[in-house]
Amino acid sequence: MEKKCNVAKKSIQFQLFSQRQRINFINSILGIKPCSLIGTINSTKKTNLSIVNSTFHLGANPSLVGLIIRPDISPRHTLENIRDIKKFTINHVNSDIYQKAHQTSARYSADTSEFEATGLTEMYHEDFIAPFVSESNIQLAMNFVREISITENATHLIIAEIESVYMKEDYLGEDKYANLEKADTICTSGLETYHSISLLQRLPYAKVPSS
Amino acid sequence: MEKKCNVAKKSIQFQLFSQRQRINFINSILGIKPCSLIGTINSTKKTNLSIVNSTFHLGANPSLVGLIIRPDISPRHTLENIRDIKKFTINHVNSDIYQKAHQTSARYSADTSEFEATGLTEMYHEDFIAPFVSESNIQLAMNFVREISITENATHLIIAEIESVYMKEDYLGEDKYANLEKADTICTSGLETYHSISLLQRLPYAKVPSS
Repeated sequence: MEKKCNVAKKSIQFQLFSQRQRINFINSILGIKPCSLIGTINSTKKTNLSIVNSTFHLGANPSLVGLIIRPDISPRHTLENIRDIKKFTINHVNSDIYQKAHQTSARYSADTSEFEATGLTEMYHEDFIAPFVSESNIQLAMNFVREISITENATHLIIAEIESVYMKEDYLGEDKYANLEKADTICTSGLETYHSISLLQRLPYAKVPSS
Repeated sequence: MEKKCNVAKKSIQFQLFSQRQRINFINSILGIKPCSLIGTINSTKKTNLSIVNSTFHLGANPSLVGLIIRPDISPRHTLENIRDIKKFTINHVNSDIYQKAHQTSARYSADTSEFEATGLTEMYHEDFIAPFVSESNIQLAMNFVREISITENATHLIIAEIESVYMKEDYLGEDKYANLEKADTICTSGLETYHSISLLQRLPYAKVPSS
């Protein structure tokens, strides 16, 4: 009996797609993406807010994060503000605010704050200069570390360190794992599709079986 | 009336956590992560399979992907194989295989193939040298482009280009958006917690409202 195969024998001919179709396909084909709002401020105290799905974990100690920014699309003010002020915030998107969060991706002019334009509320913690999103359940204060140019397509990798995390303590287990389902953190696929998450299982640390 | 605040006023004192607690906390606090199996092969045709949650989109044309590899933990053979052979595969994890996929993170020796050790099935497409995971519903053939050292914590950023994608055509909409819920693609949080996804909404491209 031939084993069932889960995929087609021939590959998807995405090189023949229209430009718009190719953008849809490649943006969705790598898998599920995180969904965050990046809060920044400029030297004249104008705030900016931008949805991104390009944050990733780099290490726990030091607590480093990576963030990809494409300067040719909407978060370009985000990049300028991070370069100037060296501080920004990462705010988790939840099911109550994803529509407003998505609207931050419209091409507002530099003199429009996406907080005002979308109705999300800016807030501040202690003396950290960049704005947080009040409606977000997990809020991170970030310090810029370094920028790396991805010359292949003119994108920018921002490396940053987590300075502080603001959230309710009851999202944390005894082992300090943050329960993102309890925090209603959502995720995305493609450029504009939003998903909630449901626990399948938490597995133990994997070990090589003893023989 | 004071506005309800979604977070605690004081930040989480993660700097005081134990090393293990800090790893749990920082690995979960950034948000939802993708979940893929990286398939590689070495020059003696020994295959290797490694679960990662550090892939991210870099661009649609050229179709570029980033992948972070920490050489001090399990995917170190993955890094050596990618450097040597310049080809690898990315295979989506689904709800049927996440337990086997997780088991690939155990510290098997270089002469053990995680395919054999975990019971996942290697398969090949056309003349692409690296192994795909037969049980995966979306399989990508990748060409190595460049490696960037993240000197801050000795991790490695691999930049790679999507050469081919193998999947059932019926996961694709007319606009070529891949429906990851239909493909049963799952996601992770922390180091070992697996989640399925449920559609909240697909939103239209965001535009600045005309005044």
